[in-house]
Amino acid sequence: MERHFDAALREAKQLLIGMAGYVETTIDSAMEGLEGRNVAKLRHVYEVEKTVNQDHIAVDDACVKLLALQQPLAADLRLIVAILKINTDLERMADQAVNIAQNSERYISCEPLKPLIDLPMMFREAKLMVREAIDAFVKRDLKLARDVLKRDEQVDLLKTQIFVDVLHHMKASPEKIEQGLSLILIARNVERIGDHATNIAEDVIYAITGEDVRHGSRGAGLKEAFTK
Amino acid sequence: MERHFDAALREAKQLLIGMAGYVETTIDSAMEGLEGRNVAKLRHVYEVEKTVNQDHIAVDDACVKLLALQQPLAADLRLIVAILKINTDLERMADQAVNIAQNSERYISCEPLKPLIDLPMMFREAKLMVREAIDAFVKRDLKLARDVLKRDEQVDLLKTQIFVDVLHHMKASPEKIEQGLSLILIARNVERIGDHATNIAEDVIYAITGEDVRHGSRGAGLKEAFTK
Repeated sequence: MERHFDAALREAKQLLIGMAGYVETTIDSAMEGLEGRNVAKLRHVYEVEKTVNQDHIAVDDACVKLLALQQPLAADLRLIVAILKINTDLERMADQAVNIAQNSERYISCEPLKPLIDLPMMFREAKLMVREAIDAFVKRDLKLARDVLKRDEQVDLLKTQIFVDVLHHMKASPEKIEQGLSLILIARNVERIGDHATNIAEDVIYAITGEDVRHGSRGAGLKEAFTK
Repeated sequence: MERHFDAALREAKQLLIGMAGYVETTIDSAMEGLEGRNVAKLRHVYEVEKTVNQDHIAVDDACVKLLALQQPLAADLRLIVAILKINTDLERMADQAVNIAQNSERYISCEPLKPLIDLPMMFREAKLMVREAIDAFVKRDLKLARDVLKRDEQVDLLKTQIFVDVLHHMKASPEKIEQGLSLILIARNVERIGDHATNIAEDVIYAITGEDVRHGSRGAGLKEAFTK
């Protein structure tokens, strides 16, 4: 028979996975709204973000109750701490999607600066990072989590390329400086989504192995506290 | 006689407060480097951020050990969870200071776009939010924590004002578009520092009262788990 604790932990995990689905919707909707110059899609982001915010509070609440009412074992404790952290990153991803939607509303209200080519590419790459980071959490897949970390470089490169290209267009058409600025801010938002996916992948690695791989560190973390 | 647990909790708190000092140094150094067009000050940010990253790992580690080795009481548990969250926000503030330093290095390598007037003002306001959020944590001062939340609006207003003003200068001097872009990105970074200070103030309120004030919510949070 499943312990009450295990059931509650499973529930917290399910809540987080459900929330991740809504976060992915905010990103997709922002991307589609920008590419299709579709205001309704962009405004949909604001609606879905409200649900993300509710889940954000619910997930934290579930984790704190788990910590309060039980004395979790090492692996469970790592998982709860990872869920607390992933929860923060997911919520902030949705914040970035809201920023993208706001910048996109401004962008599509004017004449386009240039055809969008690399920005949708960057979007897809960041979106893939999010998907893989969540999959790595669901499947406890270390390899997938490590793949996310590698993919971040690609997103950063695309951002730099977009900055250079947009600057070039801004100089050639100074009357479209606002549009250029919106695109640059959007690229920055997408980069931040990639950063949050990286954080999630690091938390997944920590939850599975007890290893802290942030800041290039290889600290034993909680593992050490239990084997000493 | 102080319990081992209390001593360890006090140590984690001290570690966090020490880290906050380094984070403030990164912000000050970035601000002074930009205002004084001083590359050495800007590069100092990168050095201090390394210490922040080390502390980031150490604080998480201390919290997880506290959770693993003891069964904390309600108020202690809230404090540990708050420290875990504040730790994340402090580390990301230092990341923003690094971004500011990088954007400032680019900015001061060219001719100025305009005299810096509102940006240092915005900087000081955000810096005050950071100081007050940390003070609220140290002194368990609810009023101060709530003041931080109010101050955030002021920072956001200053950012909008800077965006409008910089855009105006960019249009008047299109040959200085890069400089304008750097200033806009810096203003965005400073705004993010204010957001992180807001998060910390919310965590302080949670630690003291058990009340979750994020997303305009008034959930009872952990309090409820203990009074039910």
